[in-house]
This record gives sequence, structure tokens and C-alpha cells, in this order.
Amino acid sequence: MNQQIFAEIITIGDEILYGQITDTNSQWISAELDKLGIKTRQKTSVSDKADEILRSLSEASQRVNIIIITGGLGPTNDDITKKTLCTYFNTELIWNESVLAHLQNLFFIRGKELRESNKQQALVPSNCEVLMNKSGTAPGMWFDSNEVVYISLPGVPFEMKGILTDFGFDKLKLRFKTPIIGHRLIKTSGVGESTLAEIIADWEAALPAHLGLAYLPSAGEVKLRITGTGDDQENLNREIQQEIDKVLPLISHHVYGFDADTLEYSVGQLLKSKNKTLSTAESCTGGYLAHLLTSVPGSSAYYYGSIIAYQNKIKTELLDVPTGILSVHGAVSEKTVEIMAKEVRLKLGTSIGVAASGIAGPDGGTDEKPVGTIWIAYADETKVVTKKLQLSTIRENNIRMTALAVLNLIRQQLVN
Amino acid sequence: MNQQIFAEIITIGDEILYGQITDTNSQWISAELDKLGIKTRQKTSVSDKADEILRSLSEASQRVNIIIITGGLGPTNDDITKKTLCTYFNTELIWNESVLAHLQNLFFIRGKELRESNKQQALVPSNCEVLMNKSGTAPGMWFDSNEVVYISLPGVPFEMKGILTDFGFDKLKLRFKTPIIGHRLIKTSGVGESTLAEIIADWEAALPAHLGLAYLPSAGEVKLRITGTGDDQENLNREIQQEIDKVLPLISHHVYGFDADTLEYSVGQLLKSKNKTLSTAESCTGGYLAHLLTSVPGSSAYYYGSIIAYQNKIKTELLDVPTGILSVHGAVSEKTVEIMAKEVRLKLGTSIGVAASGIAGPDGGTDEKPVGTIWIAYADETKVVTKKLQLSTIRENNIRMTALAVLNLIRQQLVN
Repeated sequence: MNQQIFAEIITIGDEILYGQITDTNSQWISAELDKLGIKTRQKTSVSDKADEILRSLSEASQRVNIIIITGGLGPTNDDITKKTLCTYFNTELIWNESVLAHLQNLFFIRGKELRESNKQQALVPSNCEVLMNKSGTAPGMWFDSNEVVYISLPGVPFEMKGILTDFGFDKLKLRFKTPIIGHRLIKTSGVGESTLAEIIADWEAALPAHLGLAYLPSAGEVKLRITGTGDDQENLNREIQQEIDKVLPLISHHVYGFDADTLEYSVGQLLKSKNKTLSTAESCTGGYLAHLLTSVPGSSAYYYGSIIAYQNKIKTELLDVPTGILSVHGAVSEKTVEIMAKEVRLKLGTSIGVAASGIAGPDGGTDEKPVGTIWIAYADETKVVTKKLQLSTIRENNIRMTALAVLNLIRQQLVN
Repeated sequence: MNQQIFAEIITIGDEILYGQITDTNSQWISAELDKLGIKTRQKTSVSDKADEILRSLSEASQRVNIIIITGGLGPTNDDITKKTLCTYFNTELIWNESVLAHLQNLFFIRGKELRESNKQQALVPSNCEVLMNKSGTAPGMWFDSNEVVYISLPGVPFEMKGILTDFGFDKLKLRFKTPIIGHRLIKTSGVGESTLAEIIADWEAALPAHLGLAYLPSAGEVKLRITGTGDDQENLNREIQQEIDKVLPLISHHVYGFDADTLEYSVGQLLKSKNKTLSTAESCTGGYLAHLLTSVPGSSAYYYGSIIAYQNKIKTELLDVPTGILSVHGAVSEKTVEIMAKEVRLKLGTSIGVAASGIAGPDGGTDEKPVGTIWIAYADETKVVTKKLQLSTIRENNIRMTALAVLNLIRQQLVN
């Protein structure tokens, strides 16, 4: 068994700390490290100030083997990572000829003058090994000091990714004996975390010690993550697959896919494999269902389109919902979604039609039909299936949960 | 001048640490704290393990006055924040009657059985004050210990936001003497950061020293943030407003709103105030434009609906785009979007109709019409306006940018 290698990711910059931008770098880096069997032990965001950077470096060096630092390498005044690294390693900046040549070449190609402020990018701490930045001006820097490796990278995502992909990850694999690691995600929809936990309790309790299970719930779905460590990648993958094969029969009705699959992608694949086409009629989801379906590249192969009847008059005019139905049963009713699903299927000439109508909120609820009351329907050539949902009072949430429920209804009908 | 109050945000969960999800909670929290004059000094992500949580709490308590913890409050086994908080504060879990009553009520409304595992959510550390979670099961918890306030929150974004907005921020304002701070956002669309900077350069240079300006660009828009500190809130707000009044005439054509306004909200307000109704015909945006419009509560007052003609055959059958036009000019053409906008306006009986058709990617481009080629159109009773966009190769980005461009086109036509 190899020793576990731990990493910490330190993102530097007031724009992250004060919430002006979302940090996506640390997610990408940690996901990539995970593939190498390197566990991220902590992520830390600190300000552009020298003392904060020094403190975070010194604390991290007590915890982990690898420290990856992003941000603070630009040519402007508030970027001070490089000077601070000199203080930290008790060294000084020296000119790096390779970086200088790269800068001269880059500015020549871009037809721009290489200013003094840009040239400063070729100054690096004397104890670093430069990792060239093919797509930008600020070089990556590799330090190996007191058994800890430090990699300093620019904050621009594609430059950071380029340096790690071109040089950083390979150097890490060489420097550390990275362990063998494996993981898979089982993705479920239409079932709660605690119900799922009860169904698979015995299986979970019987998992071998080197395999771990985590529940990752988010709106409308729960992901099960199985993670393991071992001595041999193929063996480990096989073991994980064996556990998946054991648990699947217990929860197959809820499972829509694995790993990077989304529900909209899985539904699309099902439609394609069964040679079915789909149309949607939306009221409360207001286009979000169509948006999810069309966010999948190539979806026009099975998805024809939608009639969004946001106003009741449009339900009558474009989807032939009789005004009598609307006045007796209401727009949010089983009858209405049934007709919407049937009609959109006929009008757009698809194998399947689905519909949703409900009170998304925050207003518009009544005692009988409070905010969050939603009806959904599925229609194909032989049958119509309807379902009532009772969701939350939060509009955004109700829209998303309804769209996912419709997708799940399609999935369930197609796998039955 | 008041003493500076510092916060640290600790996000707990392997799914963030190992890069399976992007942490957006800490961005939102730090941006909101910033509005209260509370500076985030550090963000820390740690694993679901008790010793890691204990270490991060203890370290943070040395650095800051406020510690906000998200995640690790679900009903399953890998959620251990609550137990760990008991260890940290040397206390034990007790039943909270208010939370129990809330759970019983919530499950009754949802028509679901309250299981034992769900009930556990009503167990909280004895030294905490509960912050009720109106939209979920895991309560927020407030601890005040040794001059440091700790707020523990569920990781589900809308629940976390709800608890802080309903209770947390007000309690923080009361507990700490937060400094007087003011800020406003001016929101622009359809103009680049550097163009904007040139237009307002003189105004920016003449800003008083205690007011600061920041450019916050994101896809399709640039926000201008004016921030100031002072001794009196009313005076400060008046000063900021005076500066806004000075700069607005220079950029009024680009400004769609202020502060929390979204472009879809502002367009909705414009439609309402001018007594106009809107319908949409979407191809490449696949429902995302309708989704943006209907994400605004009350949008059914002016937004009637959409025909999403994702397949060309639907463009002909439901929007009367002649097959001759499609074969000669193509689905991505000025002629096609012109007809789509005119027809959807007539068929749905609205004052305005808009349309979008383009190649969202990643495939489907040609030499003549590469990926990212998009046509959009606006039609009302007197005119049709069309516009060609040349966007990126990234599907998600193209869909969003197109929808925003259509909204901006509507805005420009309505304010003209």
C-alpha cells in the first residue's frame, strides 16, 4: 500500500475572497488530482496581502505534501505572490532567459510592444523551476523544499490548466509514488437520500473496508459515490464494479446513469436507443424543461420542440385545452396536463408528448392548491400517465424540480 | 470609525474538496457579508472528517470574529457537522421542539411519512440558538462562544440563503457594530468593459476619495460597482446617488438596471409599464430565453408563451417558415428569424414577437456559417429589426449570450 499523498490548494485574490467571482480553478485542480490518487486535504482562499499568503503557506506546509497556489502573478501592483514566495523561501528574483524569450516571441506574434511591466514576468525566485505557460505571460513555478512541493500558477483558468496539463501533473506523478485509486458515481432521481439509505443499508454495511460510500444529494437527485484504494487499478475497478452490480438490482428503478451522465443526457440516450421522438408542452416550467433537453449536443435528433403556453389563452388556442376544462378544473389540474401532453404530441408529430402545469410561486396559491402544487403528464401512442407533485414555496426550486420530475417520468416509462 | 469585523467561511464536504461540485455558497455569503461591511478573511474547504472540522474551527477562531460553516447537516451517515460541533463546544445534542414541529408540518404538507432518520434533524447542540429553515429540514444554528459567532448552515444553496436572509444577517448586524458602508450597482448590457471605461474616464477620475469604482464583467454584461464608507448612512447613500446621477446620462443607452435587477426583470418591467405583451420563437436557445423571462415572478402578465421550433419541420408547421426559405437561406438566416418573430407575434396575439436561430455548437458549423453564428429578430406592429451575432464555440455560452442579446434588443426597442 502506498502512503497517502495530500494536497492543499491556495487561491489568492480579493475578487474570490469578497465574492466578486466564483472560484472554479480549485474544483478543476482537485478533480484532476483525485484522478492521480492525490487527495486534496484543504482548499484555502486568502487575500492579496503578503502576511496572509505567508501564513497560509506555512500552515499548509505542516499539513500536506503538495501545495498548489493560483493567482497573484499578473503584472499589476496588487499581484504580489512572486515577491512573497521570495520572502517565504528566503531567496530573490532572478531573470529567467527562457521566459524572456517566450515573452519576446509572444508579443512579436501579437504585434505588440513588450513593455517593461510585461518583462517583469521573466523575473522568478532563484530556487524555482519554471513551468512554461504556452498560452500566456505569467510562468508557472515549481519549488521543492523540505519534502513539500509548491506549484505557483496564474489565476486565468485556461493558462493554469495548460501549465498543469503540459508539465505539472507529469512532474507530480514522477515526484510522488501516487496511490491507486478508483471511483464511480451512481446517479439516482425521484428518491430521497434517507429512503435510498434504508434500501441499501445492508449492502453498505457489507462493503469491504477499502471501499467507501458517500451520498451526494442535490435538488431532484441523489448521487452515490463509491471510492476505493488498492494496489492494482484493474483489480480495484473490478471490485468497485462488482459492488455496483450487487446494489443495482435494489435501486435500478431509481438509477438514471453513472459518472458524468446528467438526467437530460440519459433521457436523450434512451429516446435515441428506442427510436422515439419527444415534444414538450410547458406552463409553470416556462421553457426550462426544453432548455435542459436542448443543452445536450445533438438533441435535435430526438427532441422536436415545445409549445410554452404560459398564459391560459395560449393553452386553449395552441393546445386545444377547452375553456370549460380550464374554468371547471383549472389550469393546474390532471385534466389540463393530460390534454396538453396529448395535444403537443399530435401537433408536433412525436412519439411522446409531456406536459407540466403548476403554481411555481411565490404568489398565486390558494388553500386548495398552494404554491408548489404541480401536475405533470406523459403521453405516448398507447397511454397517458399523470403525476401530482407537491413542492416548495421557492419558484426557482419548483421550476427545476418539476423539469427533473418530468424527465424522470419519461425515463421510467421508457425503461418499463 | 468602527473596528473591522472579519469572517471566515468554512465549507464542509468531500464533494467540494474532491472537485465533484463547485462551491458557489461561499461566493454568495462573502458578497452578502461585504454589503454589511464584514470582510471575509479566509475561505476554507475541508473534508467530512471530525478532526479536520475541529482543526479548521479552532484555527479560524484565532483569526476572525464570525465563522460561517456550510454543509454536513443531512440525515445520512457521512454528515457529521452537528456531532462535531458538540465535541468542539463540549456539549451534547438535545431535541428542539420548534424544529420537530416544523418537520412534522413539512412532511404532513408533502404527504410523506416522517421517518426516524428525518426526525434526527430536530436534534441540535444544547448551546445553539436555532435559525429556522423555512424551506428545508436541516435547521441553521447560531453559537456565540468566546467572542466568536459561529453559524452552521445546510449546504443546499437555497436553504442556506433562506436562513441567512431570514435571520442570520439581521442577527449579525445586531451582534456586531458593523461599519457604515454603501454600495450600488449600475448594470449595463451590450457594451464592453474597455469601451465603458473610456466613456466614463473623466467621471471616474473625479470621484471623491472615499468612493471607489469597480468593473465587474460577466457573460453579456458589465456591472459598475460604486462602494463607499462614511459616518452617516443617509449622507453616504445621497453622495453615491449624486455620482450615479452624474454618470447616467453618459451611459444611459447601455444601462438596463441597478443592484439586484436582472435584464429579464428589467425587460419585464418595461413591457408592463408600456402595456406591451411578448411572445418568443426559439430555435438555438431551445427554451432558455423563455426560461429567463418566466423566472421573473408575475411574468404571465406580459409574457404569453413560446413556440420552440427545434426541428426545422416545426419551423414550417408551427411558424409557417416556407420550406423554400429554409432550403435557400437556411434555418440560420435573417429571413428565417424575421418570419419566426412575425409569425409568433401573430399566432400568440402579442404586441411584440422575438426570435433566435443559430448554430450553438459544438458541431453543425460550416465555412460560411461557423459555430456561434446566430440571427435574432424583433417584430412589433410597425417594424422588424434583425441582428447577426458571431459568438463562441461553446454551446452553453452561445445559448446564454443569445438569450441576453434578444432581451437587450427588446429593451433597446422599448426605450427608443
